[in-house]
Amino acid sequence: MRDLSNDIGLLAINTATVKQWPLEKLIEACYERGIRAITPWRHDIERAGLAAARSWFNDAGITVTGYCRGGFFTYANEAGRVASDEDNIRALEEATELGAKGMALVVGGLPEGSKDLGGAHEQVAEGIARLLERAKSLKTPILIEPLHPMVAANRACVNTLKHALDLCDRIDPDVSGYLGVAADVYHLWWDPELKAQIKRGGKDRLLAFHVCDWLVPTRDMLNDRGMMGDGIIDIRRIRGWVEDTGYDGLCEVEIFSDANWWTKDGGDVLDACIARHQTVV
Amino acid sequence: MRDLSNDIGLLAINTATVKQWPLEKLIEACYERGIRAITPWRHDIERAGLAAARSWFNDAGITVTGYCRGGFFTYANEAGRVASDEDNIRALEEATELGAKGMALVVGGLPEGSKDLGGAHEQVAEGIARLLERAKSLKTPILIEPLHPMVAANRACVNTLKHALDLCDRIDPDVSGYLGVAADVYHLWWDPELKAQIKRGGKDRLLAFHVCDWLVPTRDMLNDRGMMGDGIIDIRRIRGWVEDTGYDGLCEVEIFSDANWWTKDGGDVLDACIARHQTVV
Repeated sequence: MRDLSNDIGLLAINTATVKQWPLEKLIEACYERGIRAITPWRHDIERAGLAAARSWFNDAGITVTGYCRGGFFTYANEAGRVASDEDNIRALEEATELGAKGMALVVGGLPEGSKDLGGAHEQVAEGIARLLERAKSLKTPILIEPLHPMVAANRACVNTLKHALDLCDRIDPDVSGYLGVAADVYHLWWDPELKAQIKRGGKDRLLAFHVCDWLVPTRDMLNDRGMMGDGIIDIRRIRGWVEDTGYDGLCEVEIFSDANWWTKDGGDVLDACIARHQTVV
Repeated sequence: MRDLSNDIGLLAINTATVKQWPLEKLIEACYERGIRAITPWRHDIERAGLAAARSWFNDAGITVTGYCRGGFFTYANEAGRVASDEDNIRALEEATELGAKGMALVVGGLPEGSKDLGGAHEQVAEGIARLLERAKSLKTPILIEPLHPMVAANRACVNTLKHALDLCDRIDPDVSGYLGVAADVYHLWWDPELKAQIKRGGKDRLLAFHVCDWLVPTRDMLNDRGMMGDGIIDIRRIRGWVEDTGYDGLCEVEIFSDANWWTKDGGDVLDACIARHQTVV
């Protein structure tokens, strides 16, 4: 297992973690601290302009690790499907222009008015299959991110690593390298199958590892995530399982926190991320 | 599949659904409406007195379907384990004195200060195994109730039907009839393995079927459950899977609802339960 106690090269910051800052300021502050990897959200890039954002990243020598995000493959009608496909292709083109190492997929929940979970699962599988063709031609991998079951209805109906890997095996049986998963401890920590499924996924499918923490109590189903060490997830144990597969990628911090971290100075948030990366992750 | 469109005999009411009323009033109101099955919580029985409660149920000809609840098997130290065991035995004795058909188990989350999920799983397995001996001697079945993963940390670290059935098979390989599961659509609807696991569990393990609905949005992780039909769960489809196993038991309504149903007149809540039982469940 890798020793992170003096590391900063394996730390990546998702821009949502410091959403109180615009992208340029975050890039500067990461650069000053030696952080060399950022995953931006689309709205950050839209605000900054893609060309400007790309040059900021390049100038600072910062890797664009991921791009948040594509997905929302489920639809109530054909127009919805077309709009989803077009939006996903645009997102993937943006990710490619930024040089992102991959694009995360939040797959979508039940379509408006629908109770057909099995149908939604099929829409997701077919949508990912269509997008994978573009991912191969653009040479930018797409990563299914299973989200916590508490958001199954409205955000993502793929909620376990097993389900995500089943989709990978079905859609991409030859393991092209362009379809994998993003494993986020926040969404997956509770699953008794997690260790076995991480092993099953292996280095070829586990393309990203995200960290934060589960707070007790959790006061909001979206925006009450904790800083690593402030909750109940045994992050290091899970990282061990991930690294046992040969995973040699980054540990990306993605914290949504209305009541706490989003109210603080962005620099303090980054300093906390570094400290916890080195002591808790 | 059973036709519930004119049914009332298969409807059971969990007392938490009408917690605005004391037990005696709920029993009376159920009797008046033809409802003949109730699952009480322990605090209802404590308030009423066990002997009084039993005579009310008997006089009204109402079956005590379940008893809420035992469990919380996880502990931080030996004193915690002893207290949990003693409390569970008391609860099971109460259930037996009431003539309850079974007692539900909310297994407990992580012990205070612990991040050891695997250890918690073991404590749960061992606690259930100890309690099963008493269940056999008292002839009152115990039912593992997998809860939604959003309460894994603080209420129940068994969150899928598969995990609950794995525990049953491990602890009670001979299928004594005294260990099974309570399948609640609220906790399990999102699981892509649900249909297969219901089939696997079969009539010998599926000892209770609970209904309510998942609201979008859900505003509280404990007390924002919906009345059947007001959310996104395809309850009838799941009931079909359950009845395909030969399940011939009740459909128990358990709704925690701070903002809505708990603010209404109890009689209106019961009438809504009957109407939705006949049209949505």
